[in-house]
Amino acid sequence: MESHESQPAASAARRPATPGAAPAVGMVGAGQLARMTAAPAAGLGVRFRVLAAAPEESAAQVVPDVEIGDYGSLGDLMAFAAGCDVVTFDHEHVPGPMIEAMEAAGYAVRPGSQALRFTQDKRAMRDRLTGLGYNCPRFTAVTSLSDVTEFAVQNGWPVVLKAISGGYDGRGVWVCGGPAEAAEVVGHGVPVIAEEYVRFERELAILVARSPTGQGAAYPVVQTIQQDGICREVLAPAPGLAPGVAAEAQRLGLDIARELGVTGLLAVELFETPRGLLVNELAMRPHNSGHWTIEGAVTSQFEQHLRAVLDLPLGSPSLAARHAVMVNILGGDDPDLYDRLIHVMAADPGVKVHLYGKPVRPGRKVGHVTALGWDLREVRDRARRAASYLAYEVEDTEGFR
Amino acid sequence: MESHESQPAASAARRPATPGAAPAVGMVGAGQLARMTAAPAAGLGVRFRVLAAAPEESAAQVVPDVEIGDYGSLGDLMAFAAGCDVVTFDHEHVPGPMIEAMEAAGYAVRPGSQALRFTQDKRAMRDRLTGLGYNCPRFTAVTSLSDVTEFAVQNGWPVVLKAISGGYDGRGVWVCGGPAEAAEVVGHGVPVIAEEYVRFERELAILVARSPTGQGAAYPVVQTIQQDGICREVLAPAPGLAPGVAAEAQRLGLDIARELGVTGLLAVELFETPRGLLVNELAMRPHNSGHWTIEGAVTSQFEQHLRAVLDLPLGSPSLAARHAVMVNILGGDDPDLYDRLIHVMAADPGVKVHLYGKPVRPGRKVGHVTALGWDLREVRDRARRAASYLAYEVEDTEGFR
Repeated sequence: MESHESQPAASAARRPATPGAAPAVGMVGAGQLARMTAAPAAGLGVRFRVLAAAPEESAAQVVPDVEIGDYGSLGDLMAFAAGCDVVTFDHEHVPGPMIEAMEAAGYAVRPGSQALRFTQDKRAMRDRLTGLGYNCPRFTAVTSLSDVTEFAVQNGWPVVLKAISGGYDGRGVWVCGGPAEAAEVVGHGVPVIAEEYVRFERELAILVARSPTGQGAAYPVVQTIQQDGICREVLAPAPGLAPGVAAEAQRLGLDIARELGVTGLLAVELFETPRGLLVNELAMRPHNSGHWTIEGAVTSQFEQHLRAVLDLPLGSPSLAARHAVMVNILGGDDPDLYDRLIHVMAADPGVKVHLYGKPVRPGRKVGHVTALGWDLREVRDRARRAASYLAYEVEDTEGFR
Repeated sequence: MESHESQPAASAARRPATPGAAPAVGMVGAGQLARMTAAPAAGLGVRFRVLAAAPEESAAQVVPDVEIGDYGSLGDLMAFAAGCDVVTFDHEHVPGPMIEAMEAAGYAVRPGSQALRFTQDKRAMRDRLTGLGYNCPRFTAVTSLSDVTEFAVQNGWPVVLKAISGGYDGRGVWVCGGPAEAAEVVGHGVPVIAEEYVRFERELAILVARSPTGQGAAYPVVQTIQQDGICREVLAPAPGLAPGVAAEAQRLGLDIARELGVTGLLAVELFETPRGLLVNELAMRPHNSGHWTIEGAVTSQFEQHLRAVLDLPLGSPSLAARHAVMVNILGGDDPDLYDRLIHVMAADPGVKVHLYGKPVRPGRKVGHVTALGWDLREVRDRARRAASYLAYEVEDTEGFR
């Protein structure tokens, strides 16, 4: 109940000042996650507001109650929070001290600063999770090239360097094949940790929700397929996963959410390895690995996040189909997504397309498609065909890796 | 292709002026139908605009691009249409000559005036449908009480009087047990037709979509349960319907849509009777009998309407569950719907609630709930329990009538 105690305005969410008036949830950030949260907010009769950097941002196109401001300005954050019963986030970039300041001013911020810091400081995350007994990739703090090479003596090359917070050139993770590459990263002076390069069997993700009163709900474990650090496909449920491992991952997600005091959603990215499940990354918001839930689960992750931050009873996370496959649409050379949509719809009347209203740039996530059905291979083919036709070609990979 | 030829600006919907720019669909009216259309518009990356009478209307709360105006003012309609690639409707109240004027000015109006007039003139609808060979309740035009009593000699009392267009005191249909009641209706001077009182076995509805290029799609036939002229429940698919009757109803819906030149959705309300299916009413827009499709079908009626009016390929109308039951939430004495939501969610994490953001007034439709599952009786019980807890008590009726 840690997060509850630290939020003096918590009850505002459940009982707004005007009897019968719906509460207002404000989301800092106006990307596709906020855009996709708008629909369930309307269904629940909840007022939904976003803090956007510019009116053309993805969510600002479809939400009437937009405040234009800078998520890095305490003044803008406080002004935004003043119009909300609960404040939540579309990304992890709001500086921790500003989140604390909003809490100190009495605003209900969910997830709270005590939880969010573990998404903003990878070293603190690793220290906390290993301290709690969770298996993570082997890691160490490094401040010099010799620290990195020493780590490589124990763990071999490549070594993964991760910025503790942020990064440079739009990246925060570097797989370094040897000392020369490591030297370049360390030379930038960004604080990093070194991690072993995990030779995983596959990547999994577990998405859970937790409400301030402590109710939890876990979605089925999914397999994610990443290329060049970008999520390309999600298979729900993860095919062929041993029931014991699935239960272990769900337990792990619920436990971490409770132990870190998360309110709202928590996505835990996992490596499946011969030595068991390793925790890779955490996110405390709707997550790309959960987009399939819009059609594939009884309660979408976006509705679930709203329920959790509003301290409403959580919805059923059960599958609504045998298999759901989500494939991201990455921007290609053709800016005209809409014209391509016609062909995708004509080819497959059952595939669900979600566009984010973003200008098409090569490699950028501009939408996703989801297919549902009984036969995994067929469902996956349908989703991949639709996504590849819409934009960037998805390379065929062997099997389900 | 009648409707296509009459729409000179039709191609604007498929190929907007700016390559890659999404087209703008404008909906005249800002009730719950427009509100629920906003979510699929965002998913398709389509710009969605509404013409609202006031900023607090249901859809205006959740759509950023709202024009405030009067649907009965040609100036307001033309100004609204100028910002749209396609104009469509949330209700049937826009005067026919104004729809024709928008078409004459080159705007793509879908459905067009030639189709919409059959939703605005019940006598023309009955004449046309019987002329095409469809079975309807027996009817006649009446101008005096003696016309009504003469009709009653042939068809017995009660006689149903229906305003040809509009009505008075918020009603357009009167079931008259005898001459005294009929005299009162006729005395108001509103043009009416007289119809036989059909002793139906149950009420069914068929929802179809038709695009300007002529593609059609039919949803499964549903059973509707009405009380006091208000739709209370919808069972999808209609339980125990003979496959031949289901196919006949789907065929009928697709044929009427083609023969009347409908673009967009067409809902046909039917009576199942010992002498076969009779056509009761038509609506050319998303319809209360199709709200279950949001979760219960692969493509929701709201997405389907957008696809159809944009001349995009239609989506699959297949069921996404064995049974879907929708129950309307009618306003009761308690204005505080949101607080009641908590209890509904706690009792049933799988039921889907949609609130319309309307002030609660006794008997008014303020939302709906949908439940999905394998056992019809259980699914129906869940939906009814949730709806009745949220507001007005649903009286128990015998069986499925």
